[in-house]
Amino acid sequence: MKQSRDEFFLKKCLALARKGCGLVSPNPMVGAVISKGNRMIGWGWHRGYGLPHAEVEALAMAGPKAKGATLYVNLEPCCHYGKTPPCTDAIIKAGIRKVVFSTIDPNPFVNGKSIRILESQGVSVRYGILEKESNELNETYFTYINKKRPFISLKWAMSVDGKIANEKGESKWITSDEARQYNRRLRFEYDAILTGINTIIRDDPLLDFCLPAYAAKKEITSRKRYYKIILDSNLRMPLSSRVLNTSAKLIIFTKKGIRSGMYPDNVELIGIDEIEEGLLDIRQVISHLYGIGVGKLLVEGGTKVLTSFWRFNLFDRIYAFIGARILGGTAVYPPLEGNIIPLDSGEFLCIKEVVRFSTDLLLVLKNVLGNN
Amino acid sequence: MKQSRDEFFLKKCLALARKGCGLVSPNPMVGAVISKGNRMIGWGWHRGYGLPHAEVEALAMAGPKAKGATLYVNLEPCCHYGKTPPCTDAIIKAGIRKVVFSTIDPNPFVNGKSIRILESQGVSVRYGILEKESNELNETYFTYINKKRPFISLKWAMSVDGKIANEKGESKWITSDEARQYNRRLRFEYDAILTGINTIIRDDPLLDFCLPAYAAKKEITSRKRYYKIILDSNLRMPLSSRVLNTSAKLIIFTKKGIRSGMYPDNVELIGIDEIEEGLLDIRQVISHLYGIGVGKLLVEGGTKVLTSFWRFNLFDRIYAFIGARILGGTAVYPPLEGNIIPLDSGEFLCIKEVVRFSTDLLLVLKNVLGNN
Repeated sequence: MKQSRDEFFLKKCLALARKGCGLVSPNPMVGAVISKGNRMIGWGWHRGYGLPHAEVEALAMAGPKAKGATLYVNLEPCCHYGKTPPCTDAIIKAGIRKVVFSTIDPNPFVNGKSIRILESQGVSVRYGILEKESNELNETYFTYINKKRPFISLKWAMSVDGKIANEKGESKWITSDEARQYNRRLRFEYDAILTGINTIIRDDPLLDFCLPAYAAKKEITSRKRYYKIILDSNLRMPLSSRVLNTSAKLIIFTKKGIRSGMYPDNVELIGIDEIEEGLLDIRQVISHLYGIGVGKLLVEGGTKVLTSFWRFNLFDRIYAFIGARILGGTAVYPPLEGNIIPLDSGEFLCIKEVVRFSTDLLLVLKNVLGNN
Repeated sequence: MKQSRDEFFLKKCLALARKGCGLVSPNPMVGAVISKGNRMIGWGWHRGYGLPHAEVEALAMAGPKAKGATLYVNLEPCCHYGKTPPCTDAIIKAGIRKVVFSTIDPNPFVNGKSIRILESQGVSVRYGILEKESNELNETYFTYINKKRPFISLKWAMSVDGKIANEKGESKWITSDEARQYNRRLRFEYDAILTGINTIIRDDPLLDFCLPAYAAKKEITSRKRYYKIILDSNLRMPLSSRVLNTSAKLIIFTKKGIRSGMYPDNVELIGIDEIEEGLLDIRQVISHLYGIGVGKLLVEGGTKVLTSFWRFNLFDRIYAFIGARILGGTAVYPPLEGNIIPLDSGEFLCIKEVVRFSTDLLLVLKNVLGNN
């Protein structure tokens, strides 16, 4: 298929942007290219939360040659003071003649304002090209801005007979090491991982991520934000838990009025309401996480924790790992209980991706039921 | 990859053999090619149960030119009188100089005997080429011969939260029409479909198959053998059931001593033992089906029927359809209950195939746990 020069360079921007995956949230992933004719004279991407924007990186690379050039970027340049000064200022100052971008930034501080600012300074602006691809790339950012909550993914691993634990409640391990390794790399894309106290007591997991191959540079990955979140109504968390003894920020949500124990400095206790005995109000958890800038949340709980998100339809994506094994037994732990969807509703999720491992499958589903 | 002339022609044989899929069981699928040098002068396949063997079809096509030629066939030619006369006789009579085949026929009436018969008449024999592919193709036949029972496949459709029915026991429909259509074409590959009386009462299914595209010719497909089997301990089968009112052979297994009702001529009632109240001894069912020449059995039951096969590890394959939908709810129908496999056993099934539909997935698994 023939593609225009604009499409060509915007695809480069999208590819550059992806290099920031897992490192920039709740900021969007952004890549920028500066070209004169068919030549790329500068490029860059947003490398990490708090670091310079893609446009600034690309302008720095192009230097004085940026004068009269075209700047490509997948998201509308910012025009406000955030962690860094406005990109519109830098673009105008560098003498860029034309800006081409894919998607308007829904952030109310931006939201189309940059177009007017740039045009008023004689910079011509074109946008809306590769908008679908750009929206897809920053799906999580748009959720964060538009719904004022993190993008939420539920993850579980079940047997081919539909169980996430055996009769004794054991779930170590339903999938193979290969699939679990893949899951640890998935965690890197998230700002926070959440689980329930039962999982902590039973499995004593570290909840750590693995670095994917694209994120090799230590000066960048050391900046990664990663919260471990535990739902623990009655503060049953054992002091010996492995998860307590890592340097990662740990937040434990309990019911209000629970006295804190002797926990290390990296642990924060937050009291919230219960909706019933032993079941915390997940909406307050979500709201708190939004407040501290968690843009992407991965939920890896048992039936109870997963269901508490399903109860309020608070999820955007599902990672269902399916181990090619049978558990059998009658005391059943399904991934989700709670709300019942009638069979004749026609409410299917959207299959986004299927990943095949030697003895497992990963089904990635998008929530298209319309959520909160 | 370079392939020899023998491999080339045997691959043709395998492709021809596949055309008999669904029509020849419990016979094996067999294709034959007769060549002189690089030229194919005759070919054929076993088109249907009771019809001529592939070798005879190929010889008929080659006619007198078969003299001095080489015959390729994926399975050892037969040397006994079954439904048709021995192929070894026809091969010798036609003056074939050389026979090349893939796999020795484990049928005790054959089992290598043809090699000696052909060689004693001056026909040279080579075998063992593409044996793996040939064994895979006739996996069901080898099970039938070696284990003296039908090849058994369990099929279910579950939601992404692992349920084959909702709280009310309803399962119409968990998957989309596209997946169900695929399943009806799968049924064509089987000689019998088995389900439980609860499914009949609740869903009133026809249990019919659909013709796949390769099986268009009516004179062939009209010969297809297809039994519908119902497990119905207490003979609760309603006379109004749609499945009673088709022309297909219907076998109803009940517990011993149940009096027969007023059923049509195409219905056979067979009394067997129960292993507990309401649970028929599946081993007796299997044994009876073997006796009447059912080579491939597809089990499409609810939890109880599927579990009764799992209880004795009586299955060779699983078709797990997964609809991209959530059912929710706490009263759970998992695909299998019964026997418990410990998580640390490392007993994974083998993923044979993954088929993706718009809103569903099909996971085809092979039982490599070692079964009965």
